[in-house]
Amino acid sequence: MLKAVVIGSGNVAQHLIQAFENTVQVTLVQAYARNPERLAHLLPTDRITGSFDNVAAADIYIIAVTDDAIAEVSSLLPFSGRLVVHTSGSVDVEQLDEKNRRGVFYPLQTFSKNKAVDFKVIPICLESGNSEDYALLEQLAGTISNNIYTINSAQRRSLHVAAVFVSNFTNHMYAVGHDICTKNNIPFDILKPLIQETAAKIKELSPQQAQTGPAIRNDQRTIESHLEFLDDVNQKAIYTLLTQSIPKAHVQKL
Amino acid sequence: MLKAVVIGSGNVAQHLIQAFENTVQVTLVQAYARNPERLAHLLPTDRITGSFDNVAAADIYIIAVTDDAIAEVSSLLPFSGRLVVHTSGSVDVEQLDEKNRRGVFYPLQTFSKNKAVDFKVIPICLESGNSEDYALLEQLAGTISNNIYTINSAQRRSLHVAAVFVSNFTNHMYAVGHDICTKNNIPFDILKPLIQETAAKIKELSPQQAQTGPAIRNDQRTIESHLEFLDDVNQKAIYTLLTQSIPKAHVQKL
Repeated sequence: MLKAVVIGSGNVAQHLIQAFENTVQVTLVQAYARNPERLAHLLPTDRITGSFDNVAAADIYIIAVTDDAIAEVSSLLPFSGRLVVHTSGSVDVEQLDEKNRRGVFYPLQTFSKNKAVDFKVIPICLESGNSEDYALLEQLAGTISNNIYTINSAQRRSLHVAAVFVSNFTNHMYAVGHDICTKNNIPFDILKPLIQETAAKIKELSPQQAQTGPAIRNDQRTIESHLEFLDDVNQKAIYTLLTQSIPKAHVQKL
Repeated sequence: MLKAVVIGSGNVAQHLIQAFENTVQVTLVQAYARNPERLAHLLPTDRITGSFDNVAAADIYIIAVTDDAIAEVSSLLPFSGRLVVHTSGSVDVEQLDEKNRRGVFYPLQTFSKNKAVDFKVIPICLESGNSEDYALLEQLAGTISNNIYTINSAQRRSLHVAAVFVSNFTNHMYAVGHDICTKNNIPFDILKPLIQETAAKIKELSPQQAQTGPAIRNDQRTIESHLEFLDDVNQKAIYTLLTQSIPKAHVQKL
């Protein structure tokens, strides 16, 4: 039975705590939060600590804090020689204090408060310094997910950039669509089946095969009428840049 | 029993033909294609015509051709006083020849070849000149979809712009993610659960509530490292513009 400690109280930490609590193959011996109140809805008080001096013994320590705090938190841990991992897409494994064995346990997903996720399908990207630690991480990841990948720090950085495009920027496209609907008295719900189908197509088609719309058809009349319609300077700039970019991406693939 | 004729042989026409063929409440009496061969896999030869002179009698004629051809095709129809609709998001209803009764039957979806769609959930946006024609369109739409909306030409134009953002531009974000993965030896599959979850979140959360990532956290260190990582000028420009746009969209909502 693996013993784990989660350090942090943000979205990733909270989703991980719930995932480990829902599996019998891991004992979440403790969670650390600077403000223990933030985890009180997830764990009994005696399994939450607000002091690094009280951190319990475990096989794996998972630091799920903001990127900027990872190095400092790892240096504050009052022990050495144990396996300590972080969960960040953009922080190098070497940012962790070298007094402990180091690794990465990066769940590639967008976590929001009040939105449950199915961990079984979430890719977990693992990195570690040696094969024994990797085996431990793999065992831990396997208790909550069926999608485990070996990804080194350089790949992880590029993956994180790709994730910003397909998730954060995509969500911003939804925000612009929402804004246009609101301004024109149209319920945003009408766009939801289109949003779902656009994502569903990617399961079967490559993005190149799936591309539709005026930009890829080079339908200048529609493009001009859309630009004329848009009165928000920012939305107009996005429309212009992406409309130019779509055919370029296609030419590169041919 | 409603009798319909579909005019056109592109993606929208082919998906509509299949949808009508799959319901018993509509008789698709005929389809027109400039090149009848293009529909030969969907309908028996005696129900396809390549000549407007041979277009059969029906209750509703659905013109599903490219935007630029709608006006001309509608003027070539050798009859008058019948109900003729187009399926475009961006063409005004008045572009149809006024010799016939005019309307719009706009299915708000992204149609690709070789990708089946579930018409039942596709919003169909209807517009017509009078209530009797509207009732006919509503009856026709109801045979294939549970999501029917009354949308006038001005609303439809804004909806089409919103659809370009949430679908065409979103798919382009997937294309950039695909490109980054390919260049860095990472399987694109690893991004697919994130893509699905980003779309799934929108069923429950508003785009504002769902926004995550370095731009909304104002995480300048990550943003700078991502810009340093991106060597494609075009991708760098998109990253910069969208990263500036995300917090602006939020400020407007607060």
